Formats: sequence, C-alpha cells, structure tokens
Amino acid sequence: MAGISAVTIRRARRDDVAAIVAMLADDPLGSARERIEDPLPPSYFRAFEAVEKDPNIQLVVAEAGGTVVGCLQLCILPGLSSQGASRALIEDVRVATHCRGRGIGEQLVQWAVAEARAKGCRLVELLTHNSRVDAQRFYKRLGFAPSHVGMTLRF
Amino acid sequence: MAGISAVTIRRARRDDVAAIVAMLADDPLGSARERIEDPLPPSYFRAFEAVEKDPNIQLVVAEAGGTVVGCLQLCILPGLSSQGASRALIEDVRVATHCRGRGIGEQLVQWAVAEARAKGCRLVELLTHNSRVDAQRFYKRLGFAPSHVGMTLRF
Repeated sequence: MAGISAVTIRRARRDDVAAIVAMLADDPLGSARERIEDPLPPSYFRAFEAVEKDPNIQLVVAEAGGTVVGCLQLCILPGLSSQGASRALIEDVRVATHCRGRGIGEQLVQWAVAEARAKGCRLVELLTHNSRVDAQRFYKRLGFAPSHVGMTLRF
Repeated sequence: MAGISAVTIRRARRDDVAAIVAMLADDPLGSARERIEDPLPPSYFRAFEAVEKDPNIQLVVAEAGGTVVGCLQLCILPGLSSQGASRALIEDVRVATHCRGRGIGEQLVQWAVAEARAKGCRLVELLTHNSRVDAQRFYKRLGFAPSHVGMTLRF
C-alpha cells in the first residue's frame, strides 16, 4: 500500500509486548531467535521491565488506528569521547509487514534522531545486518553513512 | 615491544579522565574530535559523572605499573529481542601508543566479553570504523564476526 500513514509514536506499554515480539519474529533473522507462545515466555516481560526503568532507554511504538504497526528502541549513552557528548544507539527497528512502504519506519527513525539531538547527542549509530540491503538503502536516504563495520559475537 | 603485559582492569576514576581523553585523542579519528587542554573542558567530567551513575555502563581502564595504558566502555542494554536477553555494546577501546602489541587490548575485550556473559547477554556488539583494518582483524581473532554494517549520523 502506497502513500504516507500518519502514526502516533509513543512509549511502549506492557500490553504492547506481544505485538512488538510478533514484529521481531516476523523476519528472516528474528524468526530463529524469538519464541512466540501464548502466553509469551516471561523473559520478554522481565526485559520490558528492565527497559522501562532505565532512564537512558526508550522503547517506542508507532500506532495507527489503535494498532501497533512499528517499534524502535533508542539508547542514549554517555561517554567521554567527542568531548563528552552522549551517543545515541538505535536498535530493533521494525514495521509490521502489511504496513511497509508507508513511511512508518522513516517516522520512527526521524523521531529517534530528533530525540537524540534534543538530548545533546552528536552521533547516532546503529548496526544493520549485512544481508539487510534494503535497510541500508533506507538509512542512507535518511542521512546515515555506512562508515563502520558492525562486529558481533553471539554466545 | 613484544610479549604480554599483565594489567589490572578496574573501574575508571575521576582522576583517570585526563589519561583516557589523551588516549581518545591520540588517534587519526579522535584527534579531530577531542580538546586536550589543561584543565580539560568540563564537559569531559560531566560525561564521566553521567557514566559513573549509570548502572548499565562500566568505563574501565587497564593499569600497568600504576599507569593507565588502556580503556574500554561496556554498556549492558536490556531489550526485547532474542527472548529478552540483554545485549552488550563495547565502545571506546584504546591502548596507549607505546603499549600496543602486548595483549592489553585483548585483555580489555576479553574482560568485557566475560562481563557480558556474566550479565546474561547473548550478544556483544561494537562498531569499528571502516578504516580501522587492524582493529577488524583483532576482533575477528577474538571471535567477532563482521556481520553488520555500522551506520552513523553525525550532527
């Protein structure tokens, strides 16, 4: 579906957890990592509580017509480098499959960039899997440079 | 100088800030971003205080013979993905120029990986600039995969 959908971006609530996990799982990489059960494994809710009480982390959702259609997690990280400017890290950006191509991901990322600026960050960073070529094109369009190698170690 | 130096890895203190900033600045990328003045700009100390009071962030130094010869910042980030497992982000890894090649960086990174495991993380991630080919080789040797593109937006 083409065109731009106006969405509301707001802090995620506990009753959004299932919708967020469903989006994380609905993905070639995420499907192997998540466990969609009813009820959801309690580890998801414990993680939600840890996110909620961390003042440097905001997990937000995009809501359209009362339905959660996207999510993003923003971390504001203090550190000494760049004269002590905080850095922002964007993670877990997802848009529900049936809502893609409507500018919802862009609204989420632009919200995060504006929030990072407002918090005094001078750098926003993110890692996107080498296989996510569309995501890389999307972030380049929003001004991000593929300046770094994102290295990971999984246990 | 070859061989392995045994170092002590400990939490950074306020009186380590100047040594850490000197290492951040002693670098082709960092030299343009930092301000080495005496006294240091107060923004560095404000950032240190923000790091110190954040329970999810550990800024550590490697100390050898009473001198700070390396640093690393580790962030433990809760999040819903991977069944609610926290992720670890390694940043600002530096070893003093005259102490390179002695395994100090490896000890710092191995400390961070062990700490991430102990905190229940299932993923350690980091961004390293495309130009830091030696760093990429170093992280690969420690088991990291160049699986992601690290994208950045600077203001």
